[in-house]
Amino acid sequence: MQLIPDFFKKEIEIRISSLRNHLIEGGIDAILVNANVNIYYLSGRFYRGYVYLPVDGQPIWFVVKPEVFDKEGNVFYIRKPELIPEILISQGVGLPKSLALEFDDLSYSDIIRLQKIFPEAEYHNGSRIMKMTRMIKTPWEIEQMKIDGLHHAKVYSKIKNCYKPGMSDLQLQIEIERELRLEGALGVSRVAGNLMEINMGSVISGENADTPSPYEFTMGGAGVDSSLPVGADNSPILPHTTVMIDMNGAFNGYQTDMTRVWALDEIPALAMKAHDCSLRILHELEKFALPGVPVADLYVKAMEIVEEEGLKEFFMGHKSQVGFIGHGVGIELNELPVVNARSKDILAENMTIALEPKFVIPEVGAVGSENTYQVTRSGLVNLTVFPEEIHNL
Amino acid sequence: MQLIPDFFKKEIEIRISSLRNHLIEGGIDAILVNANVNIYYLSGRFYRGYVYLPVDGQPIWFVVKPEVFDKEGNVFYIRKPELIPEILISQGVGLPKSLALEFDDLSYSDIIRLQKIFPEAEYHNGSRIMKMTRMIKTPWEIEQMKIDGLHHAKVYSKIKNCYKPGMSDLQLQIEIERELRLEGALGVSRVAGNLMEINMGSVISGENADTPSPYEFTMGGAGVDSSLPVGADNSPILPHTTVMIDMNGAFNGYQTDMTRVWALDEIPALAMKAHDCSLRILHELEKFALPGVPVADLYVKAMEIVEEEGLKEFFMGHKSQVGFIGHGVGIELNELPVVNARSKDILAENMTIALEPKFVIPEVGAVGSENTYQVTRSGLVNLTVFPEEIHNL
Repeated sequence: MQLIPDFFKKEIEIRISSLRNHLIEGGIDAILVNANVNIYYLSGRFYRGYVYLPVDGQPIWFVVKPEVFDKEGNVFYIRKPELIPEILISQGVGLPKSLALEFDDLSYSDIIRLQKIFPEAEYHNGSRIMKMTRMIKTPWEIEQMKIDGLHHAKVYSKIKNCYKPGMSDLQLQIEIERELRLEGALGVSRVAGNLMEINMGSVISGENADTPSPYEFTMGGAGVDSSLPVGADNSPILPHTTVMIDMNGAFNGYQTDMTRVWALDEIPALAMKAHDCSLRILHELEKFALPGVPVADLYVKAMEIVEEEGLKEFFMGHKSQVGFIGHGVGIELNELPVVNARSKDILAENMTIALEPKFVIPEVGAVGSENTYQVTRSGLVNLTVFPEEIHNL
Repeated sequence: MQLIPDFFKKEIEIRISSLRNHLIEGGIDAILVNANVNIYYLSGRFYRGYVYLPVDGQPIWFVVKPEVFDKEGNVFYIRKPELIPEILISQGVGLPKSLALEFDDLSYSDIIRLQKIFPEAEYHNGSRIMKMTRMIKTPWEIEQMKIDGLHHAKVYSKIKNCYKPGMSDLQLQIEIERELRLEGALGVSRVAGNLMEINMGSVISGENADTPSPYEFTMGGAGVDSSLPVGADNSPILPHTTVMIDMNGAFNGYQTDMTRVWALDEIPALAMKAHDCSLRILHELEKFALPGVPVADLYVKAMEIVEEEGLKEFFMGHKSQVGFIGHGVGIELNELPVVNARSKDILAENMTIALEPKFVIPEVGAVGSENTYQVTRSGLVNLTVFPEEIHNL
């Protein structure tokens, strides 16, 4: 089997070329990649091993196990990473004076082991470099996310049928999970860092939306066990409250993030107003978020609208509020850029970002919408097209 | 809210006492814990923050967010870990000369940040210390795993009803996942390291069992996407082949691991023989695995039986074989001890280990059974009681 099939070689070249530019910018000789998500990014598949890219040469793929790939071109089998330097030398690739390693993705033990293999090198944070590279998607990657968005919307169109009167938030979530899986969801949503543990997304109803959670999600929720205090708490879905459904659209190596709100019977005017405000923010940002605009300005603009509408105390949480309204999405659910006031990133074409201006209304629940967008020269293009009004259960 | 409720304080004291003994043995002044699984172990809940245990003092709980816990006893709020030393000093706890940090669980970036906070300390690998501590379960922990085992078995009793003729392996898995969730499975199965990515377990049918996978599971499988090459490949379940069902029993902060085999119609004699051999290994080890026995001897004994029965070429894989037959289970699916030939661990009372002697028979599929056991003075006690014969679909 070819590690990288012929039809995919051009795609990988585009990614390698972008990564190389980041190495040149950083004045770094080479990067050695090992994190699962970056192995996938640089080869189009997950395999156990490494990718080594010298700034002035061709990438080399080191496969640890299983050795089922053709030993063609720059594919080498190794039992352990300690064997990498001798292969580099045998291939006429000099050892790096400066080397990027994935400081944020790999454990301390793993990095120390790799540093011993290249004892002469000066080290840089390869996680940041990979995140910057992955922040701008290729047309092929955007195509994958469009596919995710279509599947995602198809499942959301079935949510009304998933609901049966008397259901708890968790019971509803379980039926949605099943529909996602039947539609092709892989069941695994990759996230960066340790502060997002959840299975396939979150369903939060009524007052549970106002329960703070230690995790890094926009909304909290108590969960059902002290070991995983987030999301649905298995309480019944009550009349005149909302159910916020924020499941992941992970149908291939990429994913989309989309939130919609359902409600049982009518909900109070304040909640309706807050939901409309969320849509207003999204629709204004869809036009405003052009390449060249600082990402922080999106956050500032959202806050201006929220303050103008007098809804600040409910924005992005109530008892506990978070300081961001969106994030990059791609192979991982939480990629760059982070849409907050401190962001230094500038919007660029083919970034993909989820925007999720949400409100928590006491005694009602969470409202607001979330879409995953492609940044284009004519504004944001929505990859998660599904009606944005509050839906009846 | 109390961070540690009164009824749970005694339980936490037992764990702290065991951890302290490991610090004493290692000659280490203190440990600073931050990994999600270890926060849960040392407090009975997941919260964002740290636990600091000085070898000669009381544990201190540092809570970052959300600050919903009572500031009682040794609970302190911090915005960032850099504030830990001044609180230690204010509490009359001296700064450590030697400090254990979780080298295997935290990223390189996280560890470097923590090391800067205690620049004078000499560092030790706290991951190893926590794993050794967690290897021996308390009676309360075993109780949780017994509860998991009961739920786990209840779901397995429904598998026959989940199957509909013409189903693929993946379709069957989706219905089992739903039953697990309805029974209370949290949907998240915590694992150590980066080499186990899967949602709630694995269903592998027929020839797919012989597809090598880059992950660290005993069985492989092609999966359905190059980003996640493991497990069910969505091929139809064929007559005269087996379906190996290895789903996780994660119904609380703990979990059980159990594998059973289903088959469509009769399967060849070789497969039946291999399955019987798996059961023979399990039943002999159930009596043999007493406290004091080296873990490696379990592996050696299993191999002796396999060789005696002439089944070595099919054991623990066929095209690609793995070199272990079991592993500890608890908060994480893959804990200590690892049951392989190189193990240096000695069996002790209240270890909990999964044993999974499995075979892959070409053109038939995987056979064999897996149970999660408690090590007791009278042998292994099975926490996952469910009939072990090959079940008809």
